[in-house]
Amino acid sequence: MPTDFTATRAAFALPEGMIYLDGNSLGPLPRAAAARLTHAVEKEWGEMLITGWNKAGWMDLPQALGDRIGRLIGAPDGTVVLGDTLSIKVYQALASALELNPGRKIILSDTGNFPSDLYMADGLARTLGQGYALRTVAPEEVEAAITSDVAVLMLTEVDYRTGRKHDMARLIAKAHAAGALVVWDLAHSAGAIPVDVTGADADFAVGCTYKYLNSGPGGPAFIYVAPRLADGVRPALSGWLGHEAPFAFDLDYRPGSGIERMRVGTPPILQMRALEASMDIWDQVEMADVRARSIELTEAFIEGVEGTCPDLTLASPRNPEERGSQVSFRHPEGYAIMQALIARGVIGDFRAPDILRFGFTPLYTTMEDVEGAVAILSEIMATAAWDRPEFRQRAKVT
Amino acid sequence: MPTDFTATRAAFALPEGMIYLDGNSLGPLPRAAAARLTHAVEKEWGEMLITGWNKAGWMDLPQALGDRIGRLIGAPDGTVVLGDTLSIKVYQALASALELNPGRKIILSDTGNFPSDLYMADGLARTLGQGYALRTVAPEEVEAAITSDVAVLMLTEVDYRTGRKHDMARLIAKAHAAGALVVWDLAHSAGAIPVDVTGADADFAVGCTYKYLNSGPGGPAFIYVAPRLADGVRPALSGWLGHEAPFAFDLDYRPGSGIERMRVGTPPILQMRALEASMDIWDQVEMADVRARSIELTEAFIEGVEGTCPDLTLASPRNPEERGSQVSFRHPEGYAIMQALIARGVIGDFRAPDILRFGFTPLYTTMEDVEGAVAILSEIMATAAWDRPEFRQRAKVT
Repeated sequence: MPTDFTATRAAFALPEGMIYLDGNSLGPLPRAAAARLTHAVEKEWGEMLITGWNKAGWMDLPQALGDRIGRLIGAPDGTVVLGDTLSIKVYQALASALELNPGRKIILSDTGNFPSDLYMADGLARTLGQGYALRTVAPEEVEAAITSDVAVLMLTEVDYRTGRKHDMARLIAKAHAAGALVVWDLAHSAGAIPVDVTGADADFAVGCTYKYLNSGPGGPAFIYVAPRLADGVRPALSGWLGHEAPFAFDLDYRPGSGIERMRVGTPPILQMRALEASMDIWDQVEMADVRARSIELTEAFIEGVEGTCPDLTLASPRNPEERGSQVSFRHPEGYAIMQALIARGVIGDFRAPDILRFGFTPLYTTMEDVEGAVAILSEIMATAAWDRPEFRQRAKVT
Repeated sequence: MPTDFTATRAAFALPEGMIYLDGNSLGPLPRAAAARLTHAVEKEWGEMLITGWNKAGWMDLPQALGDRIGRLIGAPDGTVVLGDTLSIKVYQALASALELNPGRKIILSDTGNFPSDLYMADGLARTLGQGYALRTVAPEEVEAAITSDVAVLMLTEVDYRTGRKHDMARLIAKAHAAGALVVWDLAHSAGAIPVDVTGADADFAVGCTYKYLNSGPGGPAFIYVAPRLADGVRPALSGWLGHEAPFAFDLDYRPGSGIERMRVGTPPILQMRALEASMDIWDQVEMADVRARSIELTEAFIEGVEGTCPDLTLASPRNPEERGSQVSFRHPEGYAIMQALIARGVIGDFRAPDILRFGFTPLYTTMEDVEGAVAILSEIMATAAWDRPEFRQRAKVT
């Protein structure tokens, strides 16, 4: 059955008069989340107290939600688990991959990766010492840079600034042929485009849930480990809930079975209840439908902006097959233009130095949103409405 | 002004007829938390969406809440930050301490430490290789084991099973004299007993918020770094929000100022809003009053149980100065006895192999609770009411 996007849009609380094109930064509120949270707070935490870990199923949420996200990224049940933040999951995956590939010391990544993935990799290499190092190249040079000294190829599939999409299957094949393992960051992929970690033969994949998966501010991250590897991983972050028997309180760490060992500490139950409300919507959605609609929306947006705003330069690939579910334009005054848009109710975001970024999320973005955003943006550009001091003044977080 | 414990008790939602002596495992619900969460969900996430990071002050919550917890542990403003789980914070503190003490490779801890602290230390030592190792001794042998090869002394101040309390100031002085740094786990201290990380000259301290601090299931952890060290720490978990300028999206990591660098990924806003409701109560509380009341409650409980239950053996130190805010008893059938207690509405917990554990939390535990718990426990013991199959059958989480 084709996805009913009218129904999915109705399931989100979107402020009246706002065109929200920033779901690639923070997804909007699923209407059911408030009641779900109230129930979790009052009936679970309030009434069950400590027994909620069993009675309310809190302890099983990280895997149960992992399975539901797994469906969206081609991961079989029992291979994805929730917890921590994306940075921590990057660290876990990288540390595991390096250990599985002894004798090699290079983490290869690209300059289009999200900076904190690079920070985490650099921090890990520095902690390991002994010649471990992060090597970064330009995105278009990655394939040629997969040499025989690379231990791990770590990439974000979709560039957070431009939306440029790597060819995951091709790069994985190249990496494996060269004896390297791969870690994929799906922050701008999960829920944005079809992903098939199984078909592409990914080793590790990580992602966040507060963007396209709408789990709310600070929702937990996820990690996928290929089943062929999971039981051979010895976690660097060897936490309580990754233990084979957490409640035996053994003094020695014995990793839990498969993906369970990638759990670390106590999972954030309230954030996971919010994610559950979103996954109830996602369970009714096919990624192929999302992709088709996303391409319609992004194509219309590009055509509309290019037709009316000659001063804006497309920063995303023109071929929809080569981009994720966002469109970016460059302008030297990008920051002020984005503030002017926000003041008119069109919410995108700005990424330094000059990128206007717009996310297209078919679960709640309509063609009317696209038309409205184009009309307002073109008016702002035609009248230079962005050229005001209050739009040029930088806020702490943009 | 002395703490008004009638007012603090009234601020918590405690199920009718339940005597909750497990606040050392999961604190109960502050009544104000549900409305706080609903507001955060509907008005902040729902209406502000991405702008909530500035407008609702989300980005500042980890430090703002850190300052409020700091008051309870003797930490000045700007030295405590929230985030991640306790396991991750243990890893961060340990990795930093090891790096600040080059040339030494031993992490010293004790067998009374919470096992996952040992797991994290072991995982870190294994990741570092090169001779790094975790050495554990019995709690009473710690002082003698602080030898000149110890890089870091890592201890939990209050033993999670017995409530036995280490002499923090004395052990820190001994460690510093021997050239070692210290990492203290305050999981069973923060909000339980007066702590003075400044007066005791602690280097690093970490703790969780879902026990005595009542932040709810999976609430974030905290980390303290002594101001004299903070700007010299180079974080192993070098995450986005620990960067000097996260929104500059630089490719290179530059640690933020002081405690800010111990932030890693996106903070869990919903969990922090729940913690805020609890800190509104804590802001009205003096730890000296909590300690005095805690000793009254635990002394009365020990006297009551020892007077009526000859088969139960006190596992906690008899001298209240030597224990935290919990009391434990041993019995070979401890598991079944605890199940029988829970069935009668007295909620403590069981810790393998034979420990019945009871937490006393003056913010909401009264002398009537103590008397009621003693009466029910003594009746269960006198009638062997625990000796039933349904009480002996083990659940997954206890």
